[in-house]
Amino acid sequence: MKEKLYVIKIGGNIIDDTDKLKLFLKSFASFDTPLQGMGVKKILVHGGGKLATKVAEKLGVKQQVVDGRRITDAETLKIVTMVYAGYINKNIVAGLQANQCNAIGLCGADGDAILAHKRKHPVLDYGFVGDVDAINTVLLKSLLDQNIAIVFAPITHDQQGQLLNTNADTIAQELAKGMSREYEVSLVYLFEKNGVLLDADDDNTVIAEITPAYYQQLKSKQKIFAGMIPKLDNAFSALNSGVKKVVIGKAENLEQLIKGSSGTTITTSPNSKV
Amino acid sequence: MKEKLYVIKIGGNIIDDTDKLKLFLKSFASFDTPLQGMGVKKILVHGGGKLATKVAEKLGVKQQVVDGRRITDAETLKIVTMVYAGYINKNIVAGLQANQCNAIGLCGADGDAILAHKRKHPVLDYGFVGDVDAINTVLLKSLLDQNIAIVFAPITHDQQGQLLNTNADTIAQELAKGMSREYEVSLVYLFEKNGVLLDADDDNTVIAEITPAYYQQLKSKQKIFAGMIPKLDNAFSALNSGVKKVVIGKAENLEQLIKGSSGTTITTSPNSKV
Repeated sequence: MKEKLYVIKIGGNIIDDTDKLKLFLKSFASFDTPLQGMGVKKILVHGGGKLATKVAEKLGVKQQVVDGRRITDAETLKIVTMVYAGYINKNIVAGLQANQCNAIGLCGADGDAILAHKRKHPVLDYGFVGDVDAINTVLLKSLLDQNIAIVFAPITHDQQGQLLNTNADTIAQELAKGMSREYEVSLVYLFEKNGVLLDADDDNTVIAEITPAYYQQLKSKQKIFAGMIPKLDNAFSALNSGVKKVVIGKAENLEQLIKGSSGTTITTSPNSKV
Repeated sequence: MKEKLYVIKIGGNIIDDTDKLKLFLKSFASFDTPLQGMGVKKILVHGGGKLATKVAEKLGVKQQVVDGRRITDAETLKIVTMVYAGYINKNIVAGLQANQCNAIGLCGADGDAILAHKRKHPVLDYGFVGDVDAINTVLLKSLLDQNIAIVFAPITHDQQGQLLNTNADTIAQELAKGMSREYEVSLVYLFEKNGVLLDADDDNTVIAEITPAYYQQLKSKQKIFAGMIPKLDNAFSALNSGVKKVVIGKAENLEQLIKGSSGTTITTSPNSKV
């Protein structure tokens, strides 16, 4: 039987709020699963938050947007490398250490952890944006085996010396898929809502479990909020690539999400608690 | 017999010069010792260079200097964390990966690699400056054993969640001392001169080897440039703490420095080549 691994993604709503981040790191450091017995394996993926935008404004670097898409030019890449892989990543690591959780902060270039290539697009040049090619599971497993939690900044590299800005949701998903060869992986997306909602305006209408059949049913009845569809499609794609389950919910409820008593669990095998 | 480990420190003269840095990373990636046979173990420690000062100026953060000493206030710590642990560290790692040298970039908080405490001083408050307490040799050895070179940014932590700015020369020395329990360590300081000079104005007067006896002789004859004395005192302190030898020389000559055909070797055991 494979050991459990949790790949957990947090976004700006946590990163930008010092108090929320502090509470979250405490819960990340301490959550446990009763049957594990040998230290829970954990990977945390963080996005950027508003700090990069603030630093860019102060430095007079204009955000490039073409056809509604953000472009990562050389100056923007410099800033996101500083802010994501430097400031945010190292402060999260120091915060986990303060909670007796040994953690190591990496970007995709470190140990060749996440190999990517500059995005090719027939019309639009996204600049220094990376699409993921491969995960170095050997290095990551050697760190997890030492009971070190891994904290990923959303920066990858192309093995030619170029760093690349990469979507944090994608990094979490690719890590979850890649690590499924070695572990029973739960992929946890934390955001501002309690989970996938039947009524987008009512936070009490969380759908506890979504199976492929139920998802088809919800879609055909147009019960799913349009913005959730790409997230759910990605979740099912992860499940089809070996990830055990995907959990979506509120960062404040991490412990309950892990236990299955909060949030939405997306799974191909129904009623699989913990 | 212990395996050899090289701890190599570079400063601003290399970091600030894109072309020099590129050449240096190529030589760092490729240097080898003939008798090793199982991959040379390498740690690179980098200082800050001028980028942090430039970013601070652009962001309007004033450099605090009290009694001629630089103070690391909260805003300066934020900037050095971004620039040292983010921009410089990750670009060096990506540059080494491009030279087929698998490398991982860390600061002292990562994996609790370098534990420090905020400097206590009877009169002056240096701000968020750290003095080193301990090196986590287990983690570092596990990475080196996977033939991964380690790249250190000069940032440490106090295990209470506080990152601390720490002198890069000191980090190199503490790493060399700590790792001497596991390896035969050569500590290499790279700077703009060819080595320790008999005549500070003549780059052709490099002293090839300095033993404790010869050092006393040079000092008593006032043949040593005053600015070198703290560096050499530190070098002998490292030798007294188990480091095999200390080499001082020019970054451009890394390969020759490793072979002992360039620079100054400081050693307690004379004529110990390589």
